[in-house]
Amino acid sequence: MNEPAAGPNAGDRAARVLAGEPRAIARAMRMVDDRMPGHLELLKALWPHTGKAWVLGVTGNPGAGKSTLVDGLIASYRARGQRVGVVAVDPTSPYTGGAILGDRIRMSRHTTDDGVFIRSLATRGHLGGLSRSARDVVRILDAAGYGVVVVETVGVGQDELEITRTAHSTLVMMAPGMGDEVQATKAGILESADVFAVNKADRDGADGTVRDLELMIALGRETFRASSAARGHATHTAADGHRKPGESGAAGERWTPPIVKCVATRGEGIAELLAALDGHRAWIEGTAAGRARRAQRMGEEVREALREALIEAAVHDLGDQLDEAVQNVDARAVDPYTATEALVAAFRARR
Amino acid sequence: MNEPAAGPNAGDRAARVLAGEPRAIARAMRMVDDRMPGHLELLKALWPHTGKAWVLGVTGNPGAGKSTLVDGLIASYRARGQRVGVVAVDPTSPYTGGAILGDRIRMSRHTTDDGVFIRSLATRGHLGGLSRSARDVVRILDAAGYGVVVVETVGVGQDELEITRTAHSTLVMMAPGMGDEVQATKAGILESADVFAVNKADRDGADGTVRDLELMIALGRETFRASSAARGHATHTAADGHRKPGESGAAGERWTPPIVKCVATRGEGIAELLAALDGHRAWIEGTAAGRARRAQRMGEEVREALREALIEAAVHDLGDQLDEAVQNVDARAVDPYTATEALVAAFRARR
Repeated sequence: MNEPAAGPNAGDRAARVLAGEPRAIARAMRMVDDRMPGHLELLKALWPHTGKAWVLGVTGNPGAGKSTLVDGLIASYRARGQRVGVVAVDPTSPYTGGAILGDRIRMSRHTTDDGVFIRSLATRGHLGGLSRSARDVVRILDAAGYGVVVVETVGVGQDELEITRTAHSTLVMMAPGMGDEVQATKAGILESADVFAVNKADRDGADGTVRDLELMIALGRETFRASSAARGHATHTAADGHRKPGESGAAGERWTPPIVKCVATRGEGIAELLAALDGHRAWIEGTAAGRARRAQRMGEEVREALREALIEAAVHDLGDQLDEAVQNVDARAVDPYTATEALVAAFRARR
Repeated sequence: MNEPAAGPNAGDRAARVLAGEPRAIARAMRMVDDRMPGHLELLKALWPHTGKAWVLGVTGNPGAGKSTLVDGLIASYRARGQRVGVVAVDPTSPYTGGAILGDRIRMSRHTTDDGVFIRSLATRGHLGGLSRSARDVVRILDAAGYGVVVVETVGVGQDELEITRTAHSTLVMMAPGMGDEVQATKAGILESADVFAVNKADRDGADGTVRDLELMIALGRETFRASSAARGHATHTAADGHRKPGESGAAGERWTPPIVKCVATRGEGIAELLAALDGHRAWIEGTAAGRARRAQRMGEEVREALREALIEAAVHDLGDQLDEAVQNVDARAVDPYTATEALVAAFRARR
């Protein structure tokens, strides 16, 4: 917000991002992350050059070995000749300020490779804004010619899963004995996971973790079918109801998340994981259900952007009126429901 | 949404809630949770009778022994003659449908006590709506004469911490060896915790968990001071900078979360925990900083309600126009930024 109005215009900035200039890319990311003046113009100028990158979300609890595995994936994509962008989202406290993962030194072997661009995004506590920032940073990497963009988050909470919904494919990592079994039942993980990786598969309990996941996936499918049937919808999944999780779901109407066992530190399972992710990409691009999911995600983005744009405009336009409403509710002079209705009406009247 | 328009009016419904009729209370909760027609009128009618209950948020990972500890707290409040409402928030998958904690049988000894009202709230996947539902259900219990309302969530993710912001006091539970140390560094926990309970304090590692928390609190205070100073604000905290975490913060301007060791299964530490929570209540009610925080939370509620009301009105009013915008963006005929701006303008023009 403290940016001077002078400087290159959106077209110039965009041209330098499209040319792949690292400093211009970093600068563009800072602009969208801080929502500086001109960031929307820049994003609009980049838009026609986006849509080529494949976006892979990776989530999993700390300790599952995620960074090592992501490191292996990056190396594999690089070996294929693809340029890789990494957006590392750290849900950190405003107090500790993004220090959890530090400089992500585990990825340091890629820092001298100009085919890899790594960017950290801290949450800074602004609710709802992180998915948007992640989407916009991904779009900059996409425009700059990174064919694969990895969005990596810490943990498997609701917030992290929201972020993975900005991706085309979501990889959820587990490890035996991490208490992931409990985490796995948390909101949204089944809906969000396109591929499961069970890392540290040489440890005791790995087969148990795989079985738990298989059971959860099977249960989810049953519940989904039951609830679809109850709502009177056709159940497209009956024909493939006996397909084992772990088999490719690309042929069917619905996608069944494969489960891939890995030992990331030894590079074991990375090739299989890559194949599973390629399978999911083929499903998204090659089936009606996959394309519908991609469109659905775009719908979520627009609605989320609309939600944020509305509240931003309302807070800006209402100004003191909003503060007064809060004071009145706090003083119990008015109830919050009536106050909210009045604010919505005032916002619409102010256009 | 399928409710007939007939039936008792808001005033009648409110009167029965105020009289403490369990069926009327349960019915009112279902109305607000499902956002049935008439739920806002009911909440408005109840509002003048709210504001008396003390709302206690309790969060912590599964396995920390939270239910046993909450059980002990309920018994203590009952022994004081206070009626207790419990809102148990289960962040569950739409697939598994709220089955994690089942019937919360661990609280079953209170089910025959009509001074205790227990209500489960499932997330059902509606983003942003859960804090609102929790607030409104708490308000119904408040109006019905429950002097203490416990809002209990599973886990310590962002979503759970958001919910605890609907409370006056937030208790965060830990247990040694649960990996909570890692979780504790996650977004918002320091800002949200008013009191820490380290349960299973008879186990190895309990003192280490306490020390980790003390360090984190001290670090948070330093960072806060440093960033306040950097922004040029007066640092009100310098005078009490050497106060140990764990001492009561009620006398100072800022609250320092006390850390209470418990063995919930044996009832150890419950009295101390109750005293710490009473201390926080005294701080909220008796200090300018405490009252300011309460007002700030009310401001958050109004802004959150405004955000939800705006997007609801926009989705309703824009209808097909929103769907068309999504299709156009998906077809790459327009970028999402321009599409969003056009939707905001269309919404305001439609009033």
